[in-house]
Amino acid sequence: MKIKDLALLIEGTIEGDDNADINDLSGIESARQGDLTFAMDEGKLCLAEDSLTTCVLTTKTSRKSTKTLIRVNNPKLAFLLAYNAFHENVSADSMVHPTAVIAASAILGKSVRIDAHVIVEDNVVIGDHTTVESGAKIKKNCRLGEQCRLHPNVVLHENTIIKNKVVLHSGVVVGSDGFGYMRDRGKIYKFPQLGTVVIEDDVEIGANTTIDRGSLGCTIIGSGTKIDNLCHIAHNVKIGKNVIMAAQCGIAGSSVIGDNVTMSGQVAVIDNVTIGQNANIGGQSGIIGHIRENASIWGSPARGVRQVKNQLAVLSWLSKNFSKISKMIKDIDQGKRQGVL
Amino acid sequence: MKIKDLALLIEGTIEGDDNADINDLSGIESARQGDLTFAMDEGKLCLAEDSLTTCVLTTKTSRKSTKTLIRVNNPKLAFLLAYNAFHENVSADSMVHPTAVIAASAILGKSVRIDAHVIVEDNVVIGDHTTVESGAKIKKNCRLGEQCRLHPNVVLHENTIIKNKVVLHSGVVVGSDGFGYMRDRGKIYKFPQLGTVVIEDDVEIGANTTIDRGSLGCTIIGSGTKIDNLCHIAHNVKIGKNVIMAAQCGIAGSSVIGDNVTMSGQVAVIDNVTIGQNANIGGQSGIIGHIRENASIWGSPARGVRQVKNQLAVLSWLSKNFSKISKMIKDIDQGKRQGVL
Amino acid sequence: MKIKDLALLIEGTIEGDDNADINDLSGIESARQGDLTFAMDEGKLCLAEDSLTTCVLTTKTSRKSTKTLIRVNNPKLAFLLAYNAFHENVSADSMVHPTAVIAASAILGKSVRIDAHVIVEDNVVIGDHTTVESGAKIKKNCRLGEQCRLHPNVVLHENTIIKNKVVLHSGVVVGSDGFGYMRDRGKIYKFPQLGTVVIEDDVEIGANTTIDRGSLGCTIIGSGTKIDNLCHIAHNVKIGKNVIMAAQCGIAGSSVIGDNVTMSGQVAVIDNVTIGQNANIGGQSGIIGHIRENASIWGSPARGVRQVKNQLAVLSWLSKNFSKISKMIKDIDQGKRQGVL
Repeated sequence: MKIKDLALLIEGTIEGDDNADINDLSGIESARQGDLTFAMDEGKLCLAEDSLTTCVLTTKTSRKSTKTLIRVNNPKLAFLLAYNAFHENVSADSMVHPTAVIAASAILGKSVRIDAHVIVEDNVVIGDHTTVESGAKIKKNCRLGEQCRLHPNVVLHENTIIKNKVVLHSGVVVGSDGFGYMRDRGKIYKFPQLGTVVIEDDVEIGANTTIDRGSLGCTIIGSGTKIDNLCHIAHNVKIGKNVIMAAQCGIAGSSVIGDNVTMSGQVAVIDNVTIGQNANIGGQSGIIGHIRENASIWGSPARGVRQVKNQLAVLSWLSKNFSKISKMIKDIDQGKRQGVL
Repeated sequence: MKIKDLALLIEGTIEGDDNADINDLSGIESARQGDLTFAMDEGKLCLAEDSLTTCVLTTKTSRKSTKTLIRVNNPKLAFLLAYNAFHENVSADSMVHPTAVIAASAILGKSVRIDAHVIVEDNVVIGDHTTVESGAKIKKNCRLGEQCRLHPNVVLHENTIIKNKVVLHSGVVVGSDGFGYMRDRGKIYKFPQLGTVVIEDDVEIGANTTIDRGSLGCTIIGSGTKIDNLCHIAHNVKIGKNVIMAAQCGIAGSSVIGDNVTMSGQVAVIDNVTIGQNANIGGQSGIIGHIRENASIWGSPARGVRQVKNQLAVLSWLSKNFSKISKMIKDIDQGKRQGVL
Repeated sequence: MKIKDLALLIEGTIEGDDNADINDLSGIESARQGDLTFAMDEGKLCLAEDSLTTCVLTTKTSRKSTKTLIRVNNPKLAFLLAYNAFHENVSADSMVHPTAVIAASAILGKSVRIDAHVIVEDNVVIGDHTTVESGAKIKKNCRLGEQCRLHPNVVLHENTIIKNKVVLHSGVVVGSDGFGYMRDRGKIYKFPQLGTVVIEDDVEIGANTTIDRGSLGCTIIGSGTKIDNLCHIAHNVKIGKNVIMAAQCGIAGSSVIGDNVTMSGQVAVIDNVTIGQNANIGGQSGIIGHIRENASIWGSPARGVRQVKNQLAVLSWLSKNFSKISKMIKDIDQGKRQGVL
């Protein structure tokens, strides 16, 4: 990409050679010729000048440089925009590795790439420009959209629906049976697990995360949502749009997570509750009831962040002053028995 | 299955055509002709009548219907019983995919199904009607019983023993080395990991869960026990019969979980403790000592549920009244110094 | 190995036949002829004598025995040393399974073993005596050192660097994209994930653990460090040497864990903090700030262990005495209003 085309894309102004080619992005420490990097301050700009980088994204107010600059309002955000333009998950050529096992009834779109030891079962449909990396398994009747990328060893169980531009990282399991049982007279019976999973556009799911199918009905991951590694999404959960969920969170059966919710790591959400949109959930929170929109929540069990901090401060104060307080209570108690109070 | 045979199985009484065939189960929303569904109330019964379903499980007291009904005491439980009868994990035909790699010394029972890219190493024995799905790896000397199902990418390490009707979901690892180390003069030495894992009848284990082999001796998962996704079972743990363990729990080395224990998600159990049978453990609990039979436990560190709730309420009250209380304590403290009390 | 050679290795003195062969190690319960076992006390020594074991490691002060003894200061530690000598992860023969897919540009060292359905992509370098078990995927430009072992289904993403004697258990993912996003005007943009992972000598990583690549720069796991199952190590984390991290811990982006830190299970560490060397972190702790060297820390949010125990004791006492205390506060409050205090 030419620097002038890039500047157009990220709404920046160029100082220097606007005709040079940009081949890749990098951090300043590892920049090579042809790279784009970014510098938020003077120190980083000096480092960039000492590097081999071809072009530097920087602020509107920084000094002139020996390198070609693109000036923008927010260099970090502009760097992200450039990265997202450069690294679209598009498979450009059609390729099926000879060790892949593809059912005759499967339908592959244009420019689909299927790597070694992939398995594609009966009636699977895969959209254009989608990449399925080595060892991934796509079971019967799954439908994948366009420009998706399945990393190695991903497993999609029967009937899973994956829309467009979805990225599933290595070891992700989608559509495994939900965990539903009923105890009756000393035996445990399994609840039917007959539903499926729908993953909407632009979703990205981290390595070794598991998403169970609906028992009856669907588990849904809304468009734009990003889920980190080792999360557990149970049967019939509905996750809204543009949710950010950090690693090792677990969402129990049938709970609903509203749009734009942000969740730190290791959060647990009990079954059958609703978290309102835009809520912000602190790390290791334990959600055991409904959470209203825009709430800021923390702790196990989860309460308002301010409330939790107050309670921690009060407990700390009481603990530090405990010998005095307990003696005081004892004195008053005895005084009372003696009729003083 | 004929409706009359199904009614016999679930101890129900038929109203309508008892000779029709049932081919599958479904939720009301997606019911097709030939399906069995269930309706707990009038609203659901109306929906069922508007659907294509052939037969509806309902209560003994509900009204008559245009659909064939089977009346039972508990329609939901009856639906589970019917599902468990319909969905036995039985491989009916013998099949070994040509891409599977099966050692000459492995012994496969009758009607065993081995899917693509499966690996079965030396001296493995697989019982009748067991299914091993694509990409599963079964290492040396493992023994699997009858009617088991290993989902894609399951790994069984050397010497693992799997009894009958066991279901292992995608990505489960059984028999990995335990985590035992000893620090000595600035170096870390590994404790021997020479034991194995025994998984008894009717166990089901969720996607990407890991179960370590015993260091010396066995890790045991008792019959009927159900373990959800992303759990960690350490070396030499003994889990009793009919235990229900929700997602992301971790049990440290050599701990013992009694029969019929129920554990919510993200519970941690320290090493070398015993949880008595029928105990009920709340989500995110941290078990750091023995737990007696029938106990209801919650919190980190875990205490009795009632105790935890009381303490949370007290802390909340103290926090709300803190400005008053702290001033009172200050006043008393000063009064005391002045000889008032 | 002859008993006399073993005794030399573990600095023990022999009582009995110093010329017999030791073929393997075992626990007393499963000891066979040719095995070495250990007995810390009289009871275990009796059991060892009743077993088929050839040689017993015991203390300097225990009684004489019918079995050949090796007396050492610490029999358990000596058993570990013997085990570590016996079980080096050395592949002795060169072997590439015909179903493996090895790029022409990959360079394999001496005596490398590549099992079935392994994939080795372009420009990968694998050192001498390294074993890659079935279904492992090694992507472009990865470099592996000598005497490493990758268990089944391990995935190494592009550019990962693995040094010597590293063990990665089944299902480990190294080099997946970090979880970095930025919200801007209702859309979520992905932060560049261009870096890599370096795993130093003698590291062992448990089943289904995930380690993300640096976004710009490296994620580093220091030499001698041991990480248990189902842990999450985020982008740009630096873990020091000889760290012990139990199962299901999660370390958020760019945090630094000092040398010799010990971490129990299910700990969460927020991004961009430093944990000083030799710190000891209790189970389920939530680290939300820097931790100084040698600290003993517990709780969520994490505080000093002594502080947490005090606070728990105070809360318990207040809860037990709450009816008395709340009445007292009410009385004083009313007395005050009446001018008593």
